[in-house]
Amino acid sequence: MALKNFDQIVEQAKSVQKPKTVVIAGADAENILLGAFMAQEASFVFPVLVGEEEKVVPMLERLGMKDRPYRLVPTQPGENVAQTAVDVVNRGEGDMLMRGNTQTREFLLPLLVPENGLRTDKLLAHIDLVCMPEYPKVIAIGDVTVTIEPNLQQKKTIIADMVDMLKTVGYERPNIALLSMVEKVAFHMKDTIEAQELVREHCRHPIADCQLVGPIAYDLILSKEAARLKGYDCPLCGEFDGIVVPSLLAGNLIVKCWQMHAHAQTCGVVIGAKIPVALTSRSDDKEVAFHSLAFCTALSQKA
Amino acid sequence: MALKNFDQIVEQAKSVQKPKTVVIAGADAENILLGAFMAQEASFVFPVLVGEEEKVVPMLERLGMKDRPYRLVPTQPGENVAQTAVDVVNRGEGDMLMRGNTQTREFLLPLLVPENGLRTDKLLAHIDLVCMPEYPKVIAIGDVTVTIEPNLQQKKTIIADMVDMLKTVGYERPNIALLSMVEKVAFHMKDTIEAQELVREHCRHPIADCQLVGPIAYDLILSKEAARLKGYDCPLCGEFDGIVVPSLLAGNLIVKCWQMHAHAQTCGVVIGAKIPVALTSRSDDKEVAFHSLAFCTALSQKA
Repeated sequence: MALKNFDQIVEQAKSVQKPKTVVIAGADAENILLGAFMAQEASFVFPVLVGEEEKVVPMLERLGMKDRPYRLVPTQPGENVAQTAVDVVNRGEGDMLMRGNTQTREFLLPLLVPENGLRTDKLLAHIDLVCMPEYPKVIAIGDVTVTIEPNLQQKKTIIADMVDMLKTVGYERPNIALLSMVEKVAFHMKDTIEAQELVREHCRHPIADCQLVGPIAYDLILSKEAARLKGYDCPLCGEFDGIVVPSLLAGNLIVKCWQMHAHAQTCGVVIGAKIPVALTSRSDDKEVAFHSLAFCTALSQKA
Repeated sequence: MALKNFDQIVEQAKSVQKPKTVVIAGADAENILLGAFMAQEASFVFPVLVGEEEKVVPMLERLGMKDRPYRLVPTQPGENVAQTAVDVVNRGEGDMLMRGNTQTREFLLPLLVPENGLRTDKLLAHIDLVCMPEYPKVIAIGDVTVTIEPNLQQKKTIIADMVDMLKTVGYERPNIALLSMVEKVAFHMKDTIEAQELVREHCRHPIADCQLVGPIAYDLILSKEAARLKGYDCPLCGEFDGIVVPSLLAGNLIVKCWQMHAHAQTCGVVIGAKIPVALTSRSDDKEVAFHSLAFCTALSQKA
């Protein structure tokens, strides 16, 4: 069953038996705090705030939230808050991670260090879920943050992870599009060759429980009418559940365009670590943080 | 002076002393014919229709346009209409070229063959002009069709050509953004390194009469508010006149997103050949063809 909007994910999160403990790396970020306390109020999250007490506590007071339930793990200036947050999780004191006021790169690195115990044999990938008025369902897009230009093997992993994730939140047999500039395979366009190869591989040895279409251009993924005009015969056009992009730049552009021009709501998680990880952009608002936490909670219920 | 919309380009085209002869390769394309006859009616274009008589003439009748002034250069089935159109130009019987019903690749190849005499020492580049409600001016973007991933030297040429083009249609000293995923230069992201290098080169030896900013992310190019939120200090944000993209895919995605989600009007030309070349997408409507011809006419007035 496809999701129409994020309400169903929030409902899934609310059905959790006991709130999940989310460890926020660099809690001195207003939108993140607001989103986390919304999730706490909705009873599916308990926040652990990792950050400098002198910054976090006054911010909580300013936001009128100092009396909400939370735990503070104070850090010193210059301390790597991401590593500290990961240590908290490793001590068994957290179910999920969230990026607060810290660089994406600094935040992701401790997840990749084997000694930290959160790494799996999977690729880390950042998947956004997007809901926008002009598309009939919530659509996933990835990877939008971690691997600059994934190779064929990495794309297989991203497809499999995206399918798993979509199935966890309710999609039955997701339809995944492999974005390229054109539909025709051309030997001078690597994206098209790789998309074709992935579709072939999927026919021989299914990569995941999904339908895989590609190479396919942006307009044909999103619109039945564009597909009709261009004579592209595929009933899934305008109904795809997920898009796998050939590069971070492509994914980043699409999500930014959706946010700026298509009134898109988004939420994002990093999958592939032992626990779900909420990762939002620093210019995102509290709703994005709230929905990302709901998404992580829904994912961690299954795990 | 920045353009607010395409009307000023149409006015420039109308001020031409004598209509420009446009040679249409594969004239059996309804939107192209409609756009070309709009331009003919506005007295800045005279159309030469290259294509199969059995297809073109009935189409003109169906569109109620068979009595309009035009010249037909009939072709045989299987004949390369692009080569025939280029031959017409080479005989001195055409001022501009336009793509009709023929593949982009087939259309561009005869422009690249030195024997055809239309090639210059410049790179061919396809630049779109775009006008959309949420941006205060007409903005150029390129290359969106020819070079899959331009190298540094090729990017220099694209910048120079875009600046020339913008100045021809009225911009004084264009502000050009070098699109990347992020603003921070990172050695593992080639786009950022190359953008930095181009800006440095521009300081040493100006590439063109322009201001050049990069690497810069999509949202900061388009929006002053995004720049403010992210603490990116550049007064040109939200006011750039042109965007140079690192790959065709990036340019293609942006233009498609603008068309699908931001109510964008577009028109497109290929520059770098001896004559201006109108190149529109086959799913574009007659307005796009009309504006592209106005744009080519404005450019060829200067040439």
